[in-house]
Amino acid sequence: MTKLEEKVFRDPVYGYVHVYDQLIWDLIQTKEVQRLRRIKQLGGTYMVFHTAEHSRFSHSLGVYEMARKIIRALMHRGTILSEDERLLVLSAALLHDLGHGPFSHSFESVFSVRHELFTERIIMENTEVNRVLEAYQKGFATKVRDVINKTYPNPLIISIISSQLDADRLDYLLRDAYFTGAPYGEIDVERILRTMRVVNNKIVYKVSGMHAIEDYLMSRYQMYWQVYLHSTGRSFDLVIQNMLRRVRELIFSGYEFKRPLGALKDLFLEEDPSVETYLKFDDSTISYYASLFTDEEDEILRDFADRFINRRLLKEVHYTPNDETNEKLKQVKEYMIELGINPDYYLLTDHSVKTPYDYYGHKTNCLPDCIELLMRDGSIQEISEVSTIIKGIIAVKPKQEHKVYFPLDLIRLSPDGEAKQRILELLHENVQ
Amino acid sequence: MTKLEEKVFRDPVYGYVHVYDQLIWDLIQTKEVQRLRRIKQLGGTYMVFHTAEHSRFSHSLGVYEMARKIIRALMHRGTILSEDERLLVLSAALLHDLGHGPFSHSFESVFSVRHELFTERIIMENTEVNRVLEAYQKGFATKVRDVINKTYPNPLIISIISSQLDADRLDYLLRDAYFTGAPYGEIDVERILRTMRVVNNKIVYKVSGMHAIEDYLMSRYQMYWQVYLHSTGRSFDLVIQNMLRRVRELIFSGYEFKRPLGALKDLFLEEDPSVETYLKFDDSTISYYASLFTDEEDEILRDFADRFINRRLLKEVHYTPNDETNEKLKQVKEYMIELGINPDYYLLTDHSVKTPYDYYGHKTNCLPDCIELLMRDGSIQEISEVSTIIKGIIAVKPKQEHKVYFPLDLIRLSPDGEAKQRILELLHENVQ
Amino acid sequence: MTKLEEKVFRDPVYGYVHVYDQLIWDLIQTKEVQRLRRIKQLGGTYMVFHTAEHSRFSHSLGVYEMARKIIRALMHRGTILSEDERLLVLSAALLHDLGHGPFSHSFESVFSVRHELFTERIIMENTEVNRVLEAYQKGFATKVRDVINKTYPNPLIISIISSQLDADRLDYLLRDAYFTGAPYGEIDVERILRTMRVVNNKIVYKVSGMHAIEDYLMSRYQMYWQVYLHSTGRSFDLVIQNMLRRVRELIFSGYEFKRPLGALKDLFLEEDPSVETYLKFDDSTISYYASLFTDEEDEILRDFADRFINRRLLKEVHYTPNDETNEKLKQVKEYMIELGINPDYYLLTDHSVKTPYDYYGHKTNCLPDCIELLMRDGSIQEISEVSTIIKGIIAVKPKQEHKVYFPLDLIRLSPDGEAKQRILELLHENVQ
Amino acid sequence: MTKLEEKVFRDPVYGYVHVYDQLIWDLIQTKEVQRLRRIKQLGGTYMVFHTAEHSRFSHSLGVYEMARKIIRALMHRGTILSEDERLLVLSAALLHDLGHGPFSHSFESVFSVRHELFTERIIMENTEVNRVLEAYQKGFATKVRDVINKTYPNPLIISIISSQLDADRLDYLLRDAYFTGAPYGEIDVERILRTMRVVNNKIVYKVSGMHAIEDYLMSRYQMYWQVYLHSTGRSFDLVIQNMLRRVRELIFSGYEFKRPLGALKDLFLEEDPSVETYLKFDDSTISYYASLFTDEEDEILRDFADRFINRRLLKEVHYTPNDETNEKLKQVKEYMIELGINPDYYLLTDHSVKTPYDYYGHKTNCLPDCIELLMRDGSIQEISEVSTIIKGIIAVKPKQEHKVYFPLDLIRLSPDGEAKQRILELLHENVQ
Repeated sequence: MTKLEEKVFRDPVYGYVHVYDQLIWDLIQTKEVQRLRRIKQLGGTYMVFHTAEHSRFSHSLGVYEMARKIIRALMHRGTILSEDERLLVLSAALLHDLGHGPFSHSFESVFSVRHELFTERIIMENTEVNRVLEAYQKGFATKVRDVINKTYPNPLIISIISSQLDADRLDYLLRDAYFTGAPYGEIDVERILRTMRVVNNKIVYKVSGMHAIEDYLMSRYQMYWQVYLHSTGRSFDLVIQNMLRRVRELIFSGYEFKRPLGALKDLFLEEDPSVETYLKFDDSTISYYASLFTDEEDEILRDFADRFINRRLLKEVHYTPNDETNEKLKQVKEYMIELGINPDYYLLTDHSVKTPYDYYGHKTNCLPDCIELLMRDGSIQEISEVSTIIKGIIAVKPKQEHKVYFPLDLIRLSPDGEAKQRILELLHENVQ
Repeated sequence: MTKLEEKVFRDPVYGYVHVYDQLIWDLIQTKEVQRLRRIKQLGGTYMVFHTAEHSRFSHSLGVYEMARKIIRALMHRGTILSEDERLLVLSAALLHDLGHGPFSHSFESVFSVRHELFTERIIMENTEVNRVLEAYQKGFATKVRDVINKTYPNPLIISIISSQLDADRLDYLLRDAYFTGAPYGEIDVERILRTMRVVNNKIVYKVSGMHAIEDYLMSRYQMYWQVYLHSTGRSFDLVIQNMLRRVRELIFSGYEFKRPLGALKDLFLEEDPSVETYLKFDDSTISYYASLFTDEEDEILRDFADRFINRRLLKEVHYTPNDETNEKLKQVKEYMIELGINPDYYLLTDHSVKTPYDYYGHKTNCLPDCIELLMRDGSIQEISEVSTIIKGIIAVKPKQEHKVYFPLDLIRLSPDGEAKQRILELLHENVQ
Repeated sequence: MTKLEEKVFRDPVYGYVHVYDQLIWDLIQTKEVQRLRRIKQLGGTYMVFHTAEHSRFSHSLGVYEMARKIIRALMHRGTILSEDERLLVLSAALLHDLGHGPFSHSFESVFSVRHELFTERIIMENTEVNRVLEAYQKGFATKVRDVINKTYPNPLIISIISSQLDADRLDYLLRDAYFTGAPYGEIDVERILRTMRVVNNKIVYKVSGMHAIEDYLMSRYQMYWQVYLHSTGRSFDLVIQNMLRRVRELIFSGYEFKRPLGALKDLFLEEDPSVETYLKFDDSTISYYASLFTDEEDEILRDFADRFINRRLLKEVHYTPNDETNEKLKQVKEYMIELGINPDYYLLTDHSVKTPYDYYGHKTNCLPDCIELLMRDGSIQEISEVSTIIKGIIAVKPKQEHKVYFPLDLIRLSPDGEAKQRILELLHENVQ
Repeated sequence: MTKLEEKVFRDPVYGYVHVYDQLIWDLIQTKEVQRLRRIKQLGGTYMVFHTAEHSRFSHSLGVYEMARKIIRALMHRGTILSEDERLLVLSAALLHDLGHGPFSHSFESVFSVRHELFTERIIMENTEVNRVLEAYQKGFATKVRDVINKTYPNPLIISIISSQLDADRLDYLLRDAYFTGAPYGEIDVERILRTMRVVNNKIVYKVSGMHAIEDYLMSRYQMYWQVYLHSTGRSFDLVIQNMLRRVRELIFSGYEFKRPLGALKDLFLEEDPSVETYLKFDDSTISYYASLFTDEEDEILRDFADRFINRRLLKEVHYTPNDETNEKLKQVKEYMIELGINPDYYLLTDHSVKTPYDYYGHKTNCLPDCIELLMRDGSIQEISEVSTIIKGIIAVKPKQEHKVYFPLDLIRLSPDGEAKQRILELLHENVQ
């Protein structure tokens, strides 16, 4: 493959992203990769962390760069990768998020699509990305897909992209911490890279890097609770979901929209949406539709569109699910109906759970679910057998949160009376 | 005015943005301020610095926070500001960019609107922002407008927002450096704040802060050349301008668009666009239109829409304007016409000029165009009389660049022949 | 007390250290505080982390600054401290390490002095510090001592300086991380300060700050294992101890030193060393003596002096103490004696143990040993009852390390033979 | 030469310092290099910037690491260096400061030694460093010396260590900024390295790196005025000089010291001090002597020793040298004598001057005094012909400062009367 004179992208997380291969350069220029500039990495999180406005494009470049660093670290210490496999990892790193839609999880839950499937289809069907991959080597697209799908025969290749400590996670923790300003994402990447070794075609870590890994797992845990699972971001996601759910319901009920729905209608009506249709969706599409919907007749659609555009979020209260709270929620539901507030859209429960390290100890085949250490005596041990920190953490029940979201603003605007008063009482304790 | 329990926004530039006043909190929630979330601070710069995806919303919060710091520093050292004037400065800081359209400079040049005018109108006309200001105090909107327009009677109040060293510039240099990753934006803000004094109702700086100011001026200069005037960002701006210019030309020539143009048509046709129409425009609007235009019949519109969406930029060469180069450009123009490439859209000259410090020495009234130092003996001196660095810099002709932009891709795709060959030769030297 | 025009010290950890009180300014100028400039904060750690060369003086300023921030945060949220108590905390923060000798722990273990005792004596006896405190207010020295000794009646005052999350620990974690370059010391101080509340005259933390505290405890844990307990630093400490132990032994055995020992002899011979004698010792004293001792007749003293000056450290191996390893160590000892290497100085065992959080759950009186959270419902809970992370960590046995240190260089230089060979074999496994 | 398994030193400026060569590893372990741990990089600057406590050892490792990066950048772009020349540069980088004494400039001015000479002698005479170099290759010590002395035949090799933009300056600016906390030392090193090219065996910079170089020159300028030439640091240097000058004067006048002077006497009395004597001096030696001198009979010696130990500095006033001020100084001198204060030690004038870029335009042979750019057309131009910033700066007279230092404390303690009053008046204006 043609080598390129080194090209760089200035990147605040790494200083520079370096590109040395024509294949990578060409992939970056494709319209499918460029589209990721128009999709925020963290969906609605910028409604809490106002600077979390970075795109999946910058994350994709970042995963590529991190994969490049991992490969360099491994090759520097004797691992042999063929030129093809090197480019395979780099391509898979760059392309692994190609199928994400706007505000991913919300979008997927409404349209019943999976971004993993679209990543695969974009790589394999009639796209610029597919043409660039196949021009490099007949059948290369299939290989890239297999790496991303974790079906590629060489587990080492897969694990650089998908494992407990892969290029994807390393980049997003560093990047999301940088762009949110959350102070938990500092990771000693250089130490992790320096202690990586390949044993039996798997990546393991010298025990001298154990503390850096403990620290990484804690950072990840903190980022989950501080950023990814933040109530306000979840609230905004629910707003988007409700807006899109309402559009679907209206389409199927024959509602007449003021303006043509275009690609949005196609996406709801096509049995199996085409890649072409799918790729039309990005954050600006959703945003543009939302701005149109603020004029619609339907009250629920209009309300959620307005919430989207003008950041009028739902409020939440924490609760512990049990008979008593379930009874309370049932009552709230009934009072809402009395007030003409549809609880199907306006009373939403949510459950979050997260451990710092997901492994629970099946020794026989722990890839990709565990992290293994190379001990001083040459043996390999799963990290929780060595680290008292990790052992302690997996010994207790993971942290959970249950919340219920509701429209405090609408309830306050409702006519005074028992229903209103009771709802406020029932949701009382934690509403400020 | 009601005081608020302190609220904070996590912000990577300052740690936190702090809000203590109900008025500020309410302004932040208005739809006109929230709209700034959908407008990138640096327009097309993210096409060069891929992480420059931050919004005018985060900049606006940042200017507010910086103004808060300046006020605190001044009041801490004895300056007296009334509660009204304090809120006036903070409101003006938060709202000063309210009238920006998407991809500001391109947008303005095509629509002949000025964002300053729309900032004023949004503050004064029938908007949520206006209602919040007037609810605080009858006539407060007018005062805020006057501060932003620099017609408010107290020059001290104005200078916090608009001067060589104001909250706006301090925030954007810090913020743009952070989000681009350009290493030139570090500014010793704490020292600058510590050496601020008010003399005769003007802000001056103790001479012990002079080096921090020299450093700030150099950072600003570097950011201009490295970021704001970067060829690729300019190229992307020209793409947007050409797309919008072409829409206008097509509207006025009666061209029939495939889909209704909606608000975009209004904006071109209304004599004096309403605030309501104007506020409909943000980056997602332009982006959505561009995606529609990639299907249009008109070749030029389609081409520029595609360039916008898929980052196919124009190339540039540096040149020195003189008889010889003008003659060459004239020839290029003619050859382009031969190849069927409209030079009015495809051969564009551009001129950049920047000094680190714009002042040229009129002593009588140097506000807001100069920076003054408070000397050890109590006298006031304009900085270039004291700083050898600044004196040196204003003594030489400012740096300039002349460039011409053209579509290397289209020319390469043209049929071989003399015209093509001559164009490539004429633009030869600097085209890689 | 006279207020000062604000004075600042540039400090890379905080930007600036701010001083507003004449009392604090005067304390900083005293010779006893200035002496701390000549004592490294981390003793021999700079032999591993070569940039850990910062002094107890900069740490003392840092603890002062952190205490100032804590007080400001508490007062900003309604806690009332009298002017005297405010200055009491600040003085105690600045002076809490006054009694440290050079290479503290080594020094103390040889001379059987405790730095806490000398801190107390320096505050109370005839010193500049004492005079400045008493000039501020008759009896103030006693109060400052009581705060440092934790016998002052108000527990809130004490806890700012001495608790699981005090100004001392916050500063040293931040500072030691900065100066070693260890990437584990980032702490979200602003969040911790923002969530501090005073309830029943104790500091508690709003539950919304819990993750920041978890992160702090993990940072502390990492700093212990990565920095404070690092084998090489320990090795250097043992070198210093051995050098000083040898001096003592030689003094008492009537050995004649080439040069007069001066203050060092006084320190060994005085029943109860005076403050004046004690204060003569700083890092340069030890360093100077060591350089003299490199000329001494006594082989052991000369060797350890040379090790000190030229960084010839002892090597270590990890071991698990049990009958087998104890037997092995006994054998090594005997072989060493055979080789003429005194095992009393050259075979040294060492044991480290550390948990991230020391509390084991005695509810009745958990100050200063636990961290308490203020829950949303107003109740107070000890953090390990709420945090799954902390709960997990205290559930497992704390991490421990056993090591034995020995002079690999001397052994290698010994005449070949069984003794040498057996020692190398017995210590074999982990010696590279 | 034996390659080593990579060894690293944690370094906060670079993350890690990497060592791959046995030669370098062995040099680092020598006693002459280890001695640099006991000499502060910035002499008395820590009396102003209290955290500027880093040593020449960490700087030396840093210059080594920076040289390694430069070589890697050059070799990556096609420059060919033999293995010997690579190690030559690295050794010279590591050893270039070997001859520094404690508080360098003060020490040198009193003893009339030059550190450059001692660097040469330590490399060439009977030292561990010399033995390691010669063991690598017969005659290698001479080559290393020649590189450091700039007499080595290959100018490329020299320029990596000694030029306007060499490894030495790059490291000290980065490092001194890090450890002082001065916010001016940020340099875009990666860009500078990326744009380095070798043309005609000289290092030049692609014009696209020009702004990074402008920024570097400005940082250097700022560091000079903010840090290196800071009045307080200078004042402390003068204290050291005076203490040592007084010792010399007392030795030669036959004064009897309370304790034996040891090596210090040798240094004054030896015609040509031996390397062995010289190497005994480090910061702790001076510090230890100073603490002894605080007991001496001689009043001037005792005073300056006390100033050294307890940071009682001289005060300074700015002045402009002219007939009037010279007359004033003459009068101050006379009044001082009246008060019994020896002006030879207590009235000291000082002059600082600095430009950001020292070149004044001699085209014929500008190495190592100028920075050259590789233009787009392949030509080479000196930077001030291209950069308007640099051109401006060298067009004006460089910034200068004249100061006079004096003991405000002694004068205040003098008996009241005309002499005292007049001195205070004459030095009045700028004394606070």
